[in-house]
This record gives sequence, C-alpha cells and structure tokens, in this order.
Amino acid sequence: MKLASLKSGRDGRLVVVRDDLSQCAPADDIASTLQAALEGWADIEPRLRDRHAALLAGEAADTLPFDPGACAAPLPRAYHWVDGSVYLSHMKLVRQARGAEMPDSFLEEPLVYQGGSDILLGARDPIQAASEAWGIDLEAEVAVITDDVPAGTTADDASSHIKLVLLANDVSLRNLIPGELGKGFGFYQSKPPTAFSPVAVTPDALGDRWDGRKLHGAVDVTLNGERLGNPDAGKDMYFDFTRLIEHVTKTRPLGAGTIIGSGTVSNEDRSRGSCCLAEVRTIETIEKGAPETPFMSFGDRVVIDMADEGGNSIFGAIDQIVEKTGG
Amino acid sequence: MKLASLKSGRDGRLVVVRDDLSQCAPADDIASTLQAALEGWADIEPRLRDRHAALLAGEAADTLPFDPGACAAPLPRAYHWVDGSVYLSHMKLVRQARGAEMPDSFLEEPLVYQGGSDILLGARDPIQAASEAWGIDLEAEVAVITDDVPAGTTADDASSHIKLVLLANDVSLRNLIPGELGKGFGFYQSKPPTAFSPVAVTPDALGDRWDGRKLHGAVDVTLNGERLGNPDAGKDMYFDFTRLIEHVTKTRPLGAGTIIGSGTVSNEDRSRGSCCLAEVRTIETIEKGAPETPFMSFGDRVVIDMADEGGNSIFGAIDQIVEKTGG
Repeated sequence: MKLASLKSGRDGRLVVVRDDLSQCAPADDIASTLQAALEGWADIEPRLRDRHAALLAGEAADTLPFDPGACAAPLPRAYHWVDGSVYLSHMKLVRQARGAEMPDSFLEEPLVYQGGSDILLGARDPIQAASEAWGIDLEAEVAVITDDVPAGTTADDASSHIKLVLLANDVSLRNLIPGELGKGFGFYQSKPPTAFSPVAVTPDALGDRWDGRKLHGAVDVTLNGERLGNPDAGKDMYFDFTRLIEHVTKTRPLGAGTIIGSGTVSNEDRSRGSCCLAEVRTIETIEKGAPETPFMSFGDRVVIDMADEGGNSIFGAIDQIVEKTGG
Repeated sequence: MKLASLKSGRDGRLVVVRDDLSQCAPADDIASTLQAALEGWADIEPRLRDRHAALLAGEAADTLPFDPGACAAPLPRAYHWVDGSVYLSHMKLVRQARGAEMPDSFLEEPLVYQGGSDILLGARDPIQAASEAWGIDLEAEVAVITDDVPAGTTADDASSHIKLVLLANDVSLRNLIPGELGKGFGFYQSKPPTAFSPVAVTPDALGDRWDGRKLHGAVDVTLNGERLGNPDAGKDMYFDFTRLIEHVTKTRPLGAGTIIGSGTVSNEDRSRGSCCLAEVRTIETIEKGAPETPFMSFGDRVVIDMADEGGNSIFGAIDQIVEKTGG
C-alpha cells in the first residue's frame, strides 16, 4: 500500500495511491492525517488497505490523478526525526580526505542526530537558503516511519515497528557544519528542513526490496540532469534500520510517527557515484588534492528517485530547486 | 493567564488555571489541545482569556480542583524542542574543572541542541532509567513556547513570538555524554524525555518577572528535600530568549508550539548553589580534586519550583522520583 499527504493545512490530507502512482483516493475519512493513522495503525491500516483495494478495483470515490507536486511530505510535520549515518564508506572517505582514521566506536554503534521535524518539505518544495556561501548540499537517504516503540527495544524486535518506507533529501549547509560540530553540541543551523518523497510505502508492498531490515535498490540522484550517483541502498548499510531502532530506544521510547533516516547512501564501489556533493568533493580531494565540484547554487535542481524493475518510480521523485530567500 | 494540559490521550485536555493554582476549568471546547491553541493563537487566545476571566469570577462551568499530579506537560508532545546552554557561569565551571578554556565562539552565539519531543513528561511523572550507571542528573531550566516564527527573525523581532513561559527538568544521563559528544554528532541517548512544570504562563501574567527577553526570579531546586540551588534565572543569562530565537531561526522557520529552553540555570554567585549535579560535582572537583556528590539513585526525588513574592508557586512544582525500568 502506498500513502501520501496532499498539501492541506499543517498536516496534509491523507490519500491512498495506486502502485503505479497514476491515481489516488481520499482516505481522510478513515484517519484525518497520516500521523493519526500511525497512532491507531492496528485498527486503521486494514481500512486503508480496503480503500487501496477499492482504488485498484476502480471502485473508490472521489479519485484524483496523482500529482507529486500537490504532495506535502507524507508527514508534513513529525514529533521526531532522527537521522543516522550508517553507510560507513561515506564516513571513511570523509576521514581519508583529512588524513584521519575512523574511530573503532563507529563500528560498534551508529551515529545519529536529531533533525528539525516541525517543518518538513514536500518532494517538489524548493530548498530555501539565504546564502550560497552556506554550502548547500543534498543528501539522498532512505527513511522509515515507526509506530510507538518501547524503550529498550532490541534489533530483533524492531522490524515490526517499521510501518512505512520512503526517500529523503536531508539538506545540509556544509559550511556551517565545522563551526557547529566544533562547539560539540552537534548539528542545528546546518540542517534546514528535510524533504521527503511524495509517497510512503508499506514494507509488504516493496516485495524483495525490503528484507525486514533495509531497502534494496539503486537510489538515483541527478543534479541539473546529470547523474551524481545510483548506489544500492541495500549494500554497505553497516547498521540497518533495526539496529538504528535499538540504538535510538536505548534510553527512551519513540512516539508513533517517528521518522528514522539512514544518512547519505554510499557504496564501496565508487563507480556507483555519490548521493551528496560533500562526498564528491572528498573524492576529488583524495584524488586531486582539492575539491572541484561546488556546492549547489540558486536555481540548481536535484532529483532523487528509485525505480522498480519496469523503470517506474516506487516512491515518486524528490525534485527540488534551490531558491534564495531573504533573511 | 495560566494554562495546563490534563492527562488525556496523547495531547492532553486543555484547561485554564487560576493564578493561585487552586482551580481549573476545561477549555478544550475552545481549542482541542494546547498545540491547536498555539496554531491559531490570535483567534484563540482572547477566548481562552475570557474563560480564564470567567474562572476567576466563579462563572466557569465544570471547574475542577487543580491537581498538578493530573497534569501532562503543557505540550505532552511537541514538534520541536530545542535547548540552549546560555548561563555561561555553568559552562565556565565545567571547563575550569578539566583545565580547559572556554572558546571565544561561546560568547558570540549560543550553544543549542535539539531534544526528543515526541514524549515529554508531566511534572509528577517519574524519571525512568534502566541503570544508575548512566549517571542520572537533573537540569533545572526556564523554557518558552512560541507561535510560528519565520526564518531569519532577529532578536529585536523575536519577543512577540514568545507566547508561554514554563519550567523544565532536562534530565541528562551524564555518563553517556562523553561517548556521544566524542563521536561529534551531539546528544541523543544522553537526553531521555524532559519534564515540564504543570502550568505554562503567558508573559503578561508574569508582571515584572518577564522583561520581554528573560524570566527573573529564583529557581528553587531540592534533591530529597535538601536545597541544591536557588539561582536567579534573570541573572547571568548571557544569551536571552530573543537571542536564542534569532540563533535557531537563522536557517529555518519554527513551527507553532516550538519549545525553547535556557539550559541549566546558573549564577556567578556561588552561594546560590546549582541546578544540576554535574555542576555540584564540578565545583567539588575544583575545590577538592574530585567529585563527592553522586548522580541520582533510584528513589531519589527532585523538586524544581519558582515562588512569587507571597511564596506561592507560579508554574506549579516539577516533582519527580527516579524509577528503575527494564530495558
């Protein structure tokens, strides 16, 4: 089953979406919002599946052509958005570029940070920044959305809490990061609002692409129409989503509607390219002594997508233009 | 005007509270939750004030004795909880204890981290932890709640966005902090759910205690009935709440219902004591070479309160017992 939230108010209007993304049907009579659906998932999911089946059968009322541009993020705001960094090839490269070794602790437990979740971007919303000097970068990621997860959940018990899978663009302001991390408290200003794919998909609808712990398949990233990378999200994911859930519930529970990100997807196989410009620049630094590729400029366009065997988008594409704001 | 959320469902039941905390009246017919009130504050605030006036006049329906133990946090969950560390005397002490100087950057802009906001604790909820070895500490703080705040808001324009003021206990797991900060991404496991005072108060109702930028008055902290500290929240606050808002909106807007914390209150005047055990231990380290005071044990009780001139609690007391959980 595929779900989306059409732009409407602060929390969107819940719709079920045809698997081929051609059409959708309102479901806000079943749950007012996706957040509400996740809070009562056991009761609401079967009713959403009935609506989805009706849509596929051509029997749903008030159907609409599905327009990714009309979509907010599946959760237009959330109570918790925690993002990991679990593709270690990415972290190894970053450290290699500055001649540092990766600490052993990075192999023992995942790195995570908590991102802003009060305002999340739709897949076609612009990336807004006041200055190109901030070093505007994309980060193509996989994310999952959970129901309520108790504190102390183990990886083995975590998979059933993953209710939806989607893609994310965790926009980063690279030139603000050194100052922030240098102060020791982690990211804040360097992480403006994150964008999500138009559609969130239940694990069962992903077939073999979802193994209960991670998503398999190439994440296709283009910048201004040129391929930046297409690494396989299922390869080289050192800590899978169940390990992430174990880590983030060590000292606290998670509320329904928590979004958990993988961090920038990256493969050891360098021919698969990169899912962020920082990694491109890091490889240039290693190979040529200095970065050549600039961060994004106003007007640049980034597209993040994953296609099925038939070449059809699974989650809908994230497709964003960088836009200058005041401030 | 004073507001609270009685425990009910995930978001509580909104009530207006008498200034002396003796009685409350339901207000969930005006706004279903405090979050909803903040989203439509311009329209809803006058109606809440009418209900508050009716309560004071003895004309409100369905009034109840006000029971802090029946209260959830004013926002039982929030879309954004960002906590600063703006009492520099606290940070100076911590660094002095380890022979480090405070970086100049700490005087230029505030340190902030984003805390978990999907589950916030009521004032009488237990502090739950699986192990005393985590180094369970309290942190007595002042916090504010905002409406929608645009990106790029300056400190001079920030004050009008502060709609409510309250107290917080930003529980910290001290022994998990070095490992987490050492990895560079900031706090996560070391910050379990935060507790808030039963009541949130509009700035106008604080009179001279609120100067538009910060709260004045002693924050009284006791541990197992013994005074830990009573520093004045209005003294030595190096970055006030308007500077915090300027900082946290540099690269992104804030959604209505954002909670912003001050970090541990601390005065240069050491006779005022401390608002967290880490600071007590730091002073012991400086004076005696090693810390003597342990972190909290299961069964310990922490009370955080602020009294008016007549000795009456303004926000209601945070009054929590430390409790062992499985996990």
